[in-house]
Amino acid sequence: MSRPDDRAPDQLRPVSLTRNWTTHPEGSVLVEFGQTRVLCTASVTEGVPRWRKGSGLGWLTAEYSMLPRATTTRNDRESVRGKVGGRTHEISRLIGRSLRTCLDLKALGENSIVIDCDVLQADGGTRTAAITGAFVAVADAVHWIAAQKKLAGRPEQVLHRSVAAVSVGVIGGQPRLDLCYEEDVVADVDMNVVCTGTGDFVEVQGTGEQDVFDRAQLNALLDLGVAGCAELAKIQQLALSA
Amino acid sequence: MSRPDDRAPDQLRPVSLTRNWTTHPEGSVLVEFGQTRVLCTASVTEGVPRWRKGSGLGWLTAEYSMLPRATTTRNDRESVRGKVGGRTHEISRLIGRSLRTCLDLKALGENSIVIDCDVLQADGGTRTAAITGAFVAVADAVHWIAAQKKLAGRPEQVLHRSVAAVSVGVIGGQPRLDLCYEEDVVADVDMNVVCTGTGDFVEVQGTGEQDVFDRAQLNALLDLGVAGCAELAKIQQLALSA
Amino acid sequence: MSRPDDRAPDQLRPVSLTRNWTTHPEGSVLVEFGQTRVLCTASVTEGVPRWRKGSGLGWLTAEYSMLPRATTTRNDRESVRGKVGGRTHEISRLIGRSLRTCLDLKALGENSIVIDCDVLQADGGTRTAAITGAFVAVADAVHWIAAQKKLAGRPEQVLHRSVAAVSVGVIGGQPRLDLCYEEDVVADVDMNVVCTGTGDFVEVQGTGEQDVFDRAQLNALLDLGVAGCAELAKIQQLALSA
Amino acid sequence: MSRPDDRAPDQLRPVSLTRNWTTHPEGSVLVEFGQTRVLCTASVTEGVPRWRKGSGLGWLTAEYSMLPRATTTRNDRESVRGKVGGRTHEISRLIGRSLRTCLDLKALGENSIVIDCDVLQADGGTRTAAITGAFVAVADAVHWIAAQKKLAGRPEQVLHRSVAAVSVGVIGGQPRLDLCYEEDVVADVDMNVVCTGTGDFVEVQGTGEQDVFDRAQLNALLDLGVAGCAELAKIQQLALSA
Amino acid sequence: MSRPDDRAPDQLRPVSLTRNWTTHPEGSVLVEFGQTRVLCTASVTEGVPRWRKGSGLGWLTAEYSMLPRATTTRNDRESVRGKVGGRTHEISRLIGRSLRTCLDLKALGENSIVIDCDVLQADGGTRTAAITGAFVAVADAVHWIAAQKKLAGRPEQVLHRSVAAVSVGVIGGQPRLDLCYEEDVVADVDMNVVCTGTGDFVEVQGTGEQDVFDRAQLNALLDLGVAGCAELAKIQQLALSA
Amino acid sequence: MSRPDDRAPDQLRPVSLTRNWTTHPEGSVLVEFGQTRVLCTASVTEGVPRWRKGSGLGWLTAEYSMLPRATTTRNDRESVRGKVGGRTHEISRLIGRSLRTCLDLKALGENSIVIDCDVLQADGGTRTAAITGAFVAVADAVHWIAAQKKLAGRPEQVLHRSVAAVSVGVIGGQPRLDLCYEEDVVADVDMNVVCTGTGDFVEVQGTGEQDVFDRAQLNALLDLGVAGCAELAKIQQLALSA
Repeated sequence: MSRPDDRAPDQLRPVSLTRNWTTHPEGSVLVEFGQTRVLCTASVTEGVPRWRKGSGLGWLTAEYSMLPRATTTRNDRESVRGKVGGRTHEISRLIGRSLRTCLDLKALGENSIVIDCDVLQADGGTRTAAITGAFVAVADAVHWIAAQKKLAGRPEQVLHRSVAAVSVGVIGGQPRLDLCYEEDVVADVDMNVVCTGTGDFVEVQGTGEQDVFDRAQLNALLDLGVAGCAELAKIQQLALSA
Repeated sequence: MSRPDDRAPDQLRPVSLTRNWTTHPEGSVLVEFGQTRVLCTASVTEGVPRWRKGSGLGWLTAEYSMLPRATTTRNDRESVRGKVGGRTHEISRLIGRSLRTCLDLKALGENSIVIDCDVLQADGGTRTAAITGAFVAVADAVHWIAAQKKLAGRPEQVLHRSVAAVSVGVIGGQPRLDLCYEEDVVADVDMNVVCTGTGDFVEVQGTGEQDVFDRAQLNALLDLGVAGCAELAKIQQLALSA
Repeated sequence: MSRPDDRAPDQLRPVSLTRNWTTHPEGSVLVEFGQTRVLCTASVTEGVPRWRKGSGLGWLTAEYSMLPRATTTRNDRESVRGKVGGRTHEISRLIGRSLRTCLDLKALGENSIVIDCDVLQADGGTRTAAITGAFVAVADAVHWIAAQKKLAGRPEQVLHRSVAAVSVGVIGGQPRLDLCYEEDVVADVDMNVVCTGTGDFVEVQGTGEQDVFDRAQLNALLDLGVAGCAELAKIQQLALSA
Repeated sequence: MSRPDDRAPDQLRPVSLTRNWTTHPEGSVLVEFGQTRVLCTASVTEGVPRWRKGSGLGWLTAEYSMLPRATTTRNDRESVRGKVGGRTHEISRLIGRSLRTCLDLKALGENSIVIDCDVLQADGGTRTAAITGAFVAVADAVHWIAAQKKLAGRPEQVLHRSVAAVSVGVIGGQPRLDLCYEEDVVADVDMNVVCTGTGDFVEVQGTGEQDVFDRAQLNALLDLGVAGCAELAKIQQLALSA
Repeated sequence: MSRPDDRAPDQLRPVSLTRNWTTHPEGSVLVEFGQTRVLCTASVTEGVPRWRKGSGLGWLTAEYSMLPRATTTRNDRESVRGKVGGRTHEISRLIGRSLRTCLDLKALGENSIVIDCDVLQADGGTRTAAITGAFVAVADAVHWIAAQKKLAGRPEQVLHRSVAAVSVGVIGGQPRLDLCYEEDVVADVDMNVVCTGTGDFVEVQGTGEQDVFDRAQLNALLDLGVAGCAELAKIQQLALSA
Repeated sequence: MSRPDDRAPDQLRPVSLTRNWTTHPEGSVLVEFGQTRVLCTASVTEGVPRWRKGSGLGWLTAEYSMLPRATTTRNDRESVRGKVGGRTHEISRLIGRSLRTCLDLKALGENSIVIDCDVLQADGGTRTAAITGAFVAVADAVHWIAAQKKLAGRPEQVLHRSVAAVSVGVIGGQPRLDLCYEEDVVADVDMNVVCTGTGDFVEVQGTGEQDVFDRAQLNALLDLGVAGCAELAKIQQLALSA
């Protein structure tokens, strides 16, 4: 049983991280996982929301969105419908949580970072690509703050962990890494694994909408996910040292 | 290091499931996990949404909400703010997904079930209590449909699996089952485990907002969660056979 | 012509007021008028809205809502529809007005009370049950503020009047007290009477959607309503002295 | 104690009803109660809402609104705020209910009438002026439908009752008819009385936001209101026979 | 080819400007272009929005709206639909821009003017009538501020230009001034011309939804529009000197 | 007085049109006017909106939006604010109108095209770039429909005109073509010119927010705009023949 693009079950799609893809944001990264393309920007503002003022701590939030025709058929704009949908909310919260876990908000000082992840083209794994790309955009933004002499600590203190994410799933009984859309829709089990560069877990979300799964399957998926995140961490490293 | 209510680390809070707590719905269950109290109702309508008509399959959705003063301080109503928040969306989707995995929608036939989980009092674990109580409400609703002779299959076909859920977390290095609010806010890692009555996984969501976690911790939490769900499955069984 | 539950025309349904039904709010009362069940909570915050600051006067507002399946068929949530409906608005305003008339806002001092009346089960008279229960919740909240030494006056000054409410209506030419749902839908005339404990009127709202009514009918309904409120005032008294 | 405009306590302000004030609507009446000016239009469409189809019954709804600067200071538009306020909802519902009570919806046949009451200038009593003017607009609309040969019955069957409304209130202990704004804001008790042309009640709403009121005061207010509505009914008659 | 009301191609409809049409606003003008009737009010508040504080400059915004039955068939209210439509937004912005261009905001000082243009009856050219009427309302408001001794400069400094607007269009190849609705819907090209009293352009918007247009047609339309605005400027002058 | 990028006053920025920039849409064009980058997609669906069914005519609408950080500082998402802003509405309507004028909707047959113009990076002229790019996306979509044998006429009938747009403005008295952001914010007069490939006007919008303008300036701007559109038409031609 081969994959649509003939990858090995434990193989990532070609991953690319293009820094400074747009010029205005303090961090701007185009991340590609195969045909999935997400523009991740990090916008910095001095100061923090009112409820956090005087705490000495920074803040980070994230917003995820899809262009209406990022997908095979067109989706109505959430701005036109007048509300943000459940899936969008859920993914935005996941991205924000994952990135916050990996920043030292005290070393960031009272600065705010807003991450925007806009999916230009979707082919499965948009949320994991978004997390992976957003980390690089945040790293660029942190260095930008440092260059402005506004950082409370040193950049490497703020960025004390890296974070990357990948999807894994079971298709026809076979655990696979980094599902494309065609695989995603037929997966019995679907899991997103978010790991630090040192292999610890930040978030694990496994769902069996088509079927339930047992401990052995769960373990196989975790193994795949951890390995995939380790590869992505290296690619992030490379991109940041370029 | 003892728990606020002196429970053992692997001990559930007192759980109670009161069927027919209100009289109008086809299924109506008040579920209590200690001080957490959620009213779960299942509302049946004949037919399915337009996009599903003629498929022969039933449908189920869920909506979760909190009364404004279910919590220690008052939250503004989402109806007054004019939009459903991200947390509410996320939990509603989790409840719906979990319940759908455990129903045979073909045996349900073209009937729709809407689950409403309204938190009357919150003390941690509201989403897991909601799933656990909602399953019992759905079971009552399925039998109600059967009594109306509108079920495509037999009730035990529709309800081919049971589902229950529990939260687990790491506090001060110690894995614990069924966190109350006081524990929840200080947990380093927080996980929700949704299992079938036969111990398979339906959904696993682990989050390390305060800290990351390693594979050993993840395994300990999964063990606790699976055992907790098994106990809850028995309590559901008992309630349904009363 | 007998009533669905064989009551006399001037007889209330069994009324019950359970204080401290939930533990978080400063006042929390479950009120039951027969099968109608409303949770009334009073939430206290120090200070008043901006436009009232420095006035020395307190403030009170109320919000009424129904759980989606409090009724015989399910109603969509107002949070999901994105707006509060006209009926909800109208009842929330009535409850707030009625309670404010009965508080000495100067003796309350610059404290705010938000009343939430959530209908758990509806069988007619939900707004009048809400007012009746909310008064007791407010009384508990006022005593709570006093215990915090934050009250400008004494509790009995703040609570210088009690307030209760009941519905009355004409069914088949016969004036009746405290209509249940089955009576409500067939009533020619429907009136809500809100009285103080000393028998004065706070609000009178009579509507003839099915038919018009003459002065004699209006007088008969007022007589019934005043008597009903007097009984409810005694039940409130009893509950508060328990 | 004299009134701001030296009227007797039981005296209406100058009332004027101008038919065909605008040309597009099937009924269009500018009603003036002193400085209060409301444009009441009645829009007819063939057919009824889906839930009423095949019933043989007509339908009528009403929407009330104020221009932003109808009042002494400017109010934000509800369209800009994105929601209809509680007061607007409440008045729209009152107008619709009052008019429906006075139409024979069977004789109307499956036609729909939408009433729009837009306050061009406000000086107290806008809702009662709106009801009084809207009746005349509806009468014109009913005759328009008759002229199109689309009425199920005869116009005088449809319009089997007339309806008018007036506000009354207690200021400094004195009951007064038809309060202007200056009186309205200082009234202890405020009541709206809606009567048929034959003196029956359609709706009675008395509110004591500043103070409570006793039965004697209530009776005095009802007497004033009934007399005021009788005068208004004559003015309506005159306008319609012009 | 004659016009519906037998006007010459370069002839305006009868124009009327009634000042102080309502009494509350600082400026209140009913403008009529034939059957088109728009109430333009100018509301003054001391101070400016937060982002402009301390600049020494005043501010002006405008909101345009139509009553639901200003038109031949009824339009739903934007308040009920919960959002302002694109056409409304576009016209509101045009009115605000046109008026701001003609005020010296420095001479106005830190005062804010809100213009409301509510269409009571629509027969083509509502936006151009609104601009023409609003200028007169603004002039009255500026004099009102001066009378309060709150103006930074002299009124004639603030009102250093007058502004008026008119629609022009091509119907059946013929350029015409001030289209009524019947002409507007069949126009191949539709243009709105906004000019100062000295004949300069403030805004030119030409649209060919039915057909495209060439430079000669554009020039003919501009000639007509400039001449029309000059006439309107005289009528404004006259109204203001009355 | 030289331009920020040293262009001649009548010189366009480097323009690029990349077809098939994303793979899902029936037409997908990345248009660049210097640093301004807009993704224009055309989505085809069979059939037309209900109100147009059976007319034999096709339909086209457009939606414009900016990514939150397309600009120098971040703008809140319209989906999060729950409403589409006035500027967005205005531009969406302009794009839709311009494209519709250039299609033969009868030859299109009952097919619908939705254009989405999402600004990835903004540097002035986003709306004119969007129109220019959208035409190419629509052309690709029309050929796609033809390939599906669903077009009523031939592609060249549907696309009977081409359309392009460019901004022009007066800076320091000098008329300039294709303003970048730095020029746009200081322009006294700002005009958008939309022309067909044969040099006719589709839309002309000139605004003098900073200052008014006379006929000579208007003529100079029109000359520049027409010439700019002619160049753009050639670039479109080239892109489509590639």
